[in-house]
Order: sequence, then C-alpha cells, then structure tokens
Amino acid sequence: MNKVKLGNKPMLYPYPVVMLGANVEGKANFMALGFVGITNINPGMIAMGVAKNHFTTLGIQENKTFSINLPSEDMLKVTDYVGIVSGEKEDKSKLFNVFYGETQTAPMIEECPLNMECKVLEILDLGGVDYIIIGEIIENYARESVLTDGNPDVEKMNPMVFSMFDNRYFGIGDYLGKGWSVGREFEAK
Amino acid sequence: MNKVKLGNKPMLYPYPVVMLGANVEGKANFMALGFVGITNINPGMIAMGVAKNHFTTLGIQENKTFSINLPSEDMLKVTDYVGIVSGEKEDKSKLFNVFYGETQTAPMIEECPLNMECKVLEILDLGGVDYIIIGEIIENYARESVLTDGNPDVEKMNPMVFSMFDNRYFGIGDYLGKGWSVGREFEAK
Repeated sequence: MNKVKLGNKPMLYPYPVVMLGANVEGKANFMALGFVGITNINPGMIAMGVAKNHFTTLGIQENKTFSINLPSEDMLKVTDYVGIVSGEKEDKSKLFNVFYGETQTAPMIEECPLNMECKVLEILDLGGVDYIIIGEIIENYARESVLTDGNPDVEKMNPMVFSMFDNRYFGIGDYLGKGWSVGREFEAK
Repeated sequence: MNKVKLGNKPMLYPYPVVMLGANVEGKANFMALGFVGITNINPGMIAMGVAKNHFTTLGIQENKTFSINLPSEDMLKVTDYVGIVSGEKEDKSKLFNVFYGETQTAPMIEECPLNMECKVLEILDLGGVDYIIIGEIIENYARESVLTDGNPDVEKMNPMVFSMFDNRYFGIGDYLGKGWSVGREFEAK
C-alpha cells in the first residue's frame, strides 16, 4: 500500500453546493450547505450535517421542515455570503424572493433553478459538532427553462461543487458518459 | 412562484461518484455509489443510502465496516461496471489491487487516489428501498502525488460527479472562487 494516511476527516470529493432554508421564529433564513447527500430514491430522502449551534438549526427543530435550494454559478457570491453571515446578526430573508409550498414553513428561493421542500424524519446526535438530519422530500420545484425531457438538466442549471479543506468552488466540467451504460464497454484485464 | 412541480424524487445535483467496498463472506466486493454525503466534520462522518438487497449490504451488516473509494475520470468505465454487475454473479475482488487498513475488513482500491476506511455507527430503516447507513471515518489513505499542501487536490485527483434521472457523468469544471471568502464581495441590492 503506497499511500499516506491523512487522519479521520470526511474526505469526500467534491460535494454539492446548496442553500438550506428554514423559518426561524416565523422569518425565512438561509445558510450555505455542502454536508448533504441523497439516502433514498423512493420516497426521496436526504441526510445532512448541520452544526448544532447554527441559527438555521433552531428553525428546523421548531417546524420540522426545511428546504434545499440549488444555486447556479452566477449565485456564487450570495451563496458563499449566506455561509459567512449568521441569521442571528442579519436578516437574510431580504436577499431573495421567497416562496412557500404545501408545508407553509419551508422557505424557498425563487432565484434558484431548483428547490426541494422537505420534512424532517430524524434528527440524530451521534456525538459530533453537527446534528445528522434526515429529511423526506415532499415536492421539487424547478424553473421550466432548466428542464430537458421533464428532468432538471445540469448543463442548464449550472450548479457548483465544493472541495473540502482547500475551500474551493468549481463548476461542472465535460460530459463523460452515460450511467449504467458506459460500464458495458469495460473489459477486465 | 413560476415553477413546475416535479414530485418527491431526491433532486440533488450533482452528486459524487465513488465505489463502496465491503467484504462479503471474507471476499472483497465493490459497487458504484452516489447516494452519499458528509454529515459531520470532526470526527468525520458520512451518511449513505444502500439498497437493502445489494450484495455489498450483506458485508456491511456482517463486518460493520466499509470503504469509500474515489475513482479518477480514467476509471469511469470500471466504476460504472461495478454498478451494473452484482457481486452475487461475479467476483469483483479481481478487478483491483485491494488493500486493508486497521479494521482489516474494509477492502480498499489501490488504483483510486483516495480511500476512506469507515466503521458503521447506525443502520437505519426508514421505510425506503435503501438502508441509511451512517459511518465514521477511521482513516483516509491518499496517493502522495494528488496532494497539495497536505490536502487532496481535486484538480490532481480528477474525480467525477453524476446527474440523477438523466444518468450522466461529468468531470469537474473551472475553478470559481474561494469558500468563506468570495462571499465578502457580495453586495446586497
């Protein structure tokens, strides 16, 4: 094994860049979020890590709902900004046009091409800095112009990804191949 | 709200492309995995969704350990291949040079630039097709040539991302900006 050991940090590269939304004391609040992944296909579920002391966390505990909002590349600065400034100090509800879906308590960002409205299934405390929050997707909302054949199209949405530890945002690169398909061309040596 | 509703699928774009490793009845097995995200920084934790009926799942339940292996773009075909073929039908331990870390039961892929060795913290059944498995990172192993200032460098590792529902692999694109930094240039309208 010709490798160097780097300790027990979570080294998953890259991760998605989204904005997490929740109502805190009746007002919309948003934060940048990268610690999130899909955990079930049907019904759609996601798991995320959210710091116990974040302002947004209070709203998720209060309403048991939240939103995941996908920013485009041209929203880079505001996305990073909502990750820097706490809702305790600044009213971030003014930064976006906010809309609500059927839960009525998960604020969503109109300017994002795609929004997921979610309800909380579990809030786990496994001893870390973050709560591990598992949510079920209630509804997705997409701007019609980013769809191709009824599905969100990465090349039209222009989402971003993030690289941990060196703290760098990247765009999406070249198309490489089709899933559950290009592997059929593989030939074992 | 000028958006179309797309139902309750997990629409998070894009997600990482890794290979999940586990020993099943003493033999290394691997599958393609995209349903994974970071859920805690220190100690590093990840959550993933793994189909209850996958062969790899048996090994995770058996040993309470697994590995996350990050393939480079040039491993696209074999990565997609291990997602198509079940370990029940084919011995996938022969596809790679396999090494083990301190848990002795989480097989890792030498050819991948980065590997995470993990132990299971929780296996949750929330009623979906997938188990939601939360793991703690025991150790990361990196090829020295992909490091910059001691951290894995996305531009040297060349990882891939995946877009759900249209089933497309993409590479990593242009560098866009620095995290917890570029947001300071944001000026609210």
